[in-house]
Amino acid sequence: DGRGETTTELEIPGTVAEMMEPAVGVLDAGTTVEAAIAYLRGHDNPQQITYLYVTRGKRLAGMVVIRDLLLAQPGQTLASVMLPDPFALTADMPAGDAIKAAVYRHYPVYPVVDAEGGLTGIVRGWKLFERQAVEISAQSGTMVGLDKEERVQTPLWQAFRQRHPWLQINLLTAFLAAFVVGAFEDTISKVVALAAFLPVLAGQSGNNGCQTLAITLRGLTLGDMDGFPLRKLLGKEMLLGGLNGFLTGLVAGAAMWWTAARDGNEQAPLLGAVILAAMTGACVLSGLFGVMVPLTLRRFGADPATASSIFLTTGTDIAGMGLMLGLAAAFVL
Amino acid sequence: DGRGETTTELEIPGTVAEMMEPAVGVLDAGTTVEAAIAYLRGHDNPQQITYLYVTRGKRLAGMVVIRDLLLAQPGQTLASVMLPDPFALTADMPAGDAIKAAVYRHYPVYPVVDAEGGLTGIVRGWKLFERQAVEISAQSGTMVGLDKEERVQTPLWQAFRQRHPWLQINLLTAFLAAFVVGAFEDTISKVVALAAFLPVLAGQSGNNGCQTLAITLRGLTLGDMDGFPLRKLLGKEMLLGGLNGFLTGLVAGAAMWWTAARDGNEQAPLLGAVILAAMTGACVLSGLFGVMVPLTLRRFGADPATASSIFLTTGTDIAGMGLMLGLAAAFVL
Repeated sequence: DGRGETTTELEIPGTVAEMMEPAVGVLDAGTTVEAAIAYLRGHDNPQQITYLYVTRGKRLAGMVVIRDLLLAQPGQTLASVMLPDPFALTADMPAGDAIKAAVYRHYPVYPVVDAEGGLTGIVRGWKLFERQAVEISAQSGTMVGLDKEERVQTPLWQAFRQRHPWLQINLLTAFLAAFVVGAFEDTISKVVALAAFLPVLAGQSGNNGCQTLAITLRGLTLGDMDGFPLRKLLGKEMLLGGLNGFLTGLVAGAAMWWTAARDGNEQAPLLGAVILAAMTGACVLSGLFGVMVPLTLRRFGADPATASSIFLTTGTDIAGMGLMLGLAAAFVL
Repeated sequence: DGRGETTTELEIPGTVAEMMEPAVGVLDAGTTVEAAIAYLRGHDNPQQITYLYVTRGKRLAGMVVIRDLLLAQPGQTLASVMLPDPFALTADMPAGDAIKAAVYRHYPVYPVVDAEGGLTGIVRGWKLFERQAVEISAQSGTMVGLDKEERVQTPLWQAFRQRHPWLQINLLTAFLAAFVVGAFEDTISKVVALAAFLPVLAGQSGNNGCQTLAITLRGLTLGDMDGFPLRKLLGKEMLLGGLNGFLTGLVAGAAMWWTAARDGNEQAPLLGAVILAAMTGACVLSGLFGVMVPLTLRRFGADPATASSIFLTTGTDIAGMGLMLGLAAAFVL
């Protein structure tokens, strides 16, 4: 079933070690510039050599940019032309940390050292960026309970084992919302039209909250949050939720009014107002949840995207439907 | 409000031109290797020079890797050591196309040429990768109707104008589902417990569909789809939907049975079976929609993520709730 061929693609490496290749262009610190040029001339595959790595014993002592060999005198040692103590990754470094450390340096190649500073290999910069693209592309799946490593080629049973637990959790959280609805069975049996507005309200506050969630997660991914106070983001997203909830609530409220009036309900305008108020309130809360769910997940040491959409909609469903049915029970019936 | 400072970060460039900087290290094809080395030695800032760009008149004729200057004879011309007709970007190329063209080459710097092949500037490879990260990080927002350029710093009114239309569209699509529910008001008034299961069903099939949607979009982003037949993906996702829907349907069906029995409904087991069947069917369909929505969007020339979650949940809501209420009306009452 082609699994053998695709398995390597699926193995997204967890540490620098898995992206590492053997170091090329390694020379002792005492080597002269002349000898280094002769080494390059004699090399089978000089295209592979971007930098020379300069060692003292096993330890990485420095790095030489090929261009600097041109600018130096033939008799100088590499020790005198090298960049000493260059930035290096370690083999046991998590890939995510390596990406963060490398992303502002933009070297084509990074040396990798062990705990004693010994040169153990190199990592090409594009492999880090490729890994970053794979990592970021996992986010929309992680939000709904997918494993970070799942891709199109993942075998069915593996996908099933990874997805199913989160769907059962999603069901349990949906029961919480259903429990709230169940508490208002009397209200619904008196105004059955309310039932049709339950999924409308859940859908609106859920989508509104997912917009906020996506912006917050994007901010965490791209580092936008560092320069943006949480209080300001919360204020902006709750206000946006309120505006969007109010304006869509006007449309939904009018639809409720029309539906209830058609059914001969004398309290049709009041029912429309309940929908307007519930939609506005639910969307303000969805702005709050959209910011707080990922930040809370991160605070507890989890990936901020983990099942965030599931947690978010739990909150928006309970708050939104509870608000709508509670208001209807209190003011209309 | 800090807008002046953040505006540049928000301006995600649309074409190569906006990532371009002036070319450095440009020499005529007739220049000797010796003269080129002298040029490098005399340059104020040789660190900026990764490659030499070789021109004939204004036209880019080739590229010289600095390492190759070392391997050449001093009297050779650059024309004889250069890589002729190197890969180049054009200034009017959309950034997305440039990323795709560059991503497998992994050069540290790319030359940019005009329509006549004249060298107009260079683009650093890391700028393309940075842009790619920004691009991919937009996906989870695009799915729920966010503009690709919205970030945490985007001013409130700009965010409002971009988000609001999709929320109104989401509302209209929710009305379609509400219309289906409304058609079964009689059924609901006879078994009010069904109302509480509407958001449960919508939530489950929606989350299941978003899992499939995320995997499909990830496949399109990372190029996994090319080697994976559509028929196989559809089969896998619909089977996964069926399995997940059946197993969560067992739990939800049991809950319905228990709820209806508690209310004294004699058809409680049958109602449980209706929930099981509706959950299974809705989740099979959500697997279908999760694959087809992004592929259909792409077919029509749109970004495959555009509001895909909104379109998906429209389908799953209508299918799921229609199935549940239709089965209840047909078999139970």
